[in-house]
Amino acid sequence: MQTINGGGVVSPRGYVAGAAACGLKKERQLDLALIYSERDCSAAALFTQNQVVAAPVILDRDTIGVNHSAIRGVVANAGNANACTGAPGLWAARQMQKNAAFALGCREDQLFVLSTGVIGVQLPMSMVNVGIDAAAKRLSADHGAVAAEAILTTDTFAKQIAVRLPFEDGEIIIGGMAKGAGMIHPNMATMLAVITTDAAVASEDLQQLLKVAAEWSFNRISIDGDTSTNDTVILLANGASGLEIIDQQKRITFLSGLQYVCERLAHMIVRDGEGATKFVSIHVKGAASEADAHAVANTIATSPLVKTALAGNDPNWGRILAAAGRAGVLFEQSNLALSIANPNRDPLQLITNGTPTDYQEDDAAAIFGQKEIDIELNLRCGEAQATVWTCDLTHGYVAINADYRT
Amino acid sequence: MQTINGGGVVSPRGYVAGAAACGLKKERQLDLALIYSERDCSAAALFTQNQVVAAPVILDRDTIGVNHSAIRGVVANAGNANACTGAPGLWAARQMQKNAAFALGCREDQLFVLSTGVIGVQLPMSMVNVGIDAAAKRLSADHGAVAAEAILTTDTFAKQIAVRLPFEDGEIIIGGMAKGAGMIHPNMATMLAVITTDAAVASEDLQQLLKVAAEWSFNRISIDGDTSTNDTVILLANGASGLEIIDQQKRITFLSGLQYVCERLAHMIVRDGEGATKFVSIHVKGAASEADAHAVANTIATSPLVKTALAGNDPNWGRILAAAGRAGVLFEQSNLALSIANPNRDPLQLITNGTPTDYQEDDAAAIFGQKEIDIELNLRCGEAQATVWTCDLTHGYVAINADYRT
Repeated sequence: MQTINGGGVVSPRGYVAGAAACGLKKERQLDLALIYSERDCSAAALFTQNQVVAAPVILDRDTIGVNHSAIRGVVANAGNANACTGAPGLWAARQMQKNAAFALGCREDQLFVLSTGVIGVQLPMSMVNVGIDAAAKRLSADHGAVAAEAILTTDTFAKQIAVRLPFEDGEIIIGGMAKGAGMIHPNMATMLAVITTDAAVASEDLQQLLKVAAEWSFNRISIDGDTSTNDTVILLANGASGLEIIDQQKRITFLSGLQYVCERLAHMIVRDGEGATKFVSIHVKGAASEADAHAVANTIATSPLVKTALAGNDPNWGRILAAAGRAGVLFEQSNLALSIANPNRDPLQLITNGTPTDYQEDDAAAIFGQKEIDIELNLRCGEAQATVWTCDLTHGYVAINADYRT
Repeated sequence: MQTINGGGVVSPRGYVAGAAACGLKKERQLDLALIYSERDCSAAALFTQNQVVAAPVILDRDTIGVNHSAIRGVVANAGNANACTGAPGLWAARQMQKNAAFALGCREDQLFVLSTGVIGVQLPMSMVNVGIDAAAKRLSADHGAVAAEAILTTDTFAKQIAVRLPFEDGEIIIGGMAKGAGMIHPNMATMLAVITTDAAVASEDLQQLLKVAAEWSFNRISIDGDTSTNDTVILLANGASGLEIIDQQKRITFLSGLQYVCERLAHMIVRDGEGATKFVSIHVKGAASEADAHAVANTIATSPLVKTALAGNDPNWGRILAAAGRAGVLFEQSNLALSIANPNRDPLQLITNGTPTDYQEDDAAAIFGQKEIDIELNLRCGEAQATVWTCDLTHGYVAINADYRT
């Protein structure tokens, strides 16, 4: 597997992208993106598990219900989520799909619609239509980066990646782009992401592979515990490489590439979490089940007290244990072991048998002062493990979110 | 029912309290409290549901297991939680109980031990012992306020209340004190609180009454979603009023008084939440069950995005609906109605049938700018309801918690 420098959704063969600024974001920033495949694609999609879903999620669920093997692309906007907008919002999402299909020369049911941004404001369709036409005129195999930029909201950098996967009988490419920043929490799909490949994969297979890859990547990150109304991950496979993923060996190789793309995008989302200054990996080991390990890691990752301690470079590990204890998982506190990775040295052991070791406070403070922190909690009641990635909770997060609409 | 001005845990007959500064907190602040009843008390207690529990919680569970009808009082310290301290911590909690029993002239198993403060540091028993002796020398029926002050950590004011409850055949008093500030989230007992009464109540009744009262007060508040390792609510009934709570009528009246004391203490904890600038009531109505209503209210109350919007005076109600949607409760988003109380006027309706009304943005901004905010979400799929009280998430919270130990 080889990463393609500057690669993204148009790195796989047969895809083009275009972007435009139509006024949904301030200061003429790019806010509308089209991704288009010259050939029909198999498609897989994961959607938010929130009971309150945005209009484009309702529409996309319908679309994939009727068409999962002849999809042509995606129309996406940032700056307005088209969520909690009732019947007028659903009408607007349909218009967006229809107008983009007209501009691209395909059928309506061949396009997914993605929206992200402020909730509860009707989408100004006159602006969106102008943006669709402008983006359609700029379609190109060089415009992956601008498309990735156009879907950002409070993100500070565009998130894209592409990898080459060699097979004995050829090569395929998987590319992807994502946006994150806030309302990020593991629950099936947890943000907007579009992943493309020129492999040929049957749509049923594609859905299963995406589910596995997302479970171990997008579903293992948390910024703030808030699941959005718009979370969507879309995977398109147009077969332009001529290479078909059919046997088990090819499926495994394809999955490893897909998993890598999803994990890299997921990590980029955490690194660009609202106000984040640290990238934190929480490994829970020795759990009775993988679900237990995940629950404990997740509770630690979403604890405001843990996350503010991390922001303050404070080795206040008591908060990590207290969070673990409220995860709804049974364990013996006298078995717990906690350690923190120590660059170029052995991990620093903070707790063994539920009791603090005689570690030096200065050593712990130095490790917690780093930008990348690896925490390992061993429950010592089984063999299962899980990792969750998160960031710290800073003044920056409060500033961004207390002030988002003003 | 009548509130006693400046009343607290020693307002009921037969109780005394004392406090001392033994050096666990900085700058010689009060950090050790004794509460003592001259007569044996029936006792009820609720403890944290966290799997990681502090040494005093382990000890108190043992104590009430062997003695729930001849309790004499409580010894409490702030500045050190005696949590995650292993076997040495449990020894220290036992020493604290033993030394306080000696100073007060009762048996060890007649005292509860409460600790709050930093986790993972061994309790310096030499200091604690000096504090116990000093506090025991100052026992008085006037020292309720200093005892309430001595259990505070990052709280900014002491929390106490007492009420008189008239009955046909006499009068009883219920008093209480609490500390809160951080790691506050509904899960049985959610902070430290000691409640006293001079009514005579059988201990089995007392436990049941406390459970009901706590369920609708302490268990309905949230500061940050973090459940502590030390949460404990203790209720003592010494019978000094000569009035016995036996028949159903008296039980109902007593419960109303107890409920009022618990709710007032719970509200004080929210008002004094770390960094809090607002008191927010979240009423969920029209739910299929009370558990559903509670789950939705609770998810809204713990959403970082909702709480930062509240901090920013931002009527960004989309975040309220998005939080409701991830509570794990089924509802139809097209049925939702959301309104905000409007002082001296009708509530401002923001959403009906899942769609924004034509409310004026200025009106909404003015209401969200207030210090007390009442949010009502109607799911319109049943008759059940629940209320949760919370505060906003501010720079102050981050500053306090990123910097707690330094």
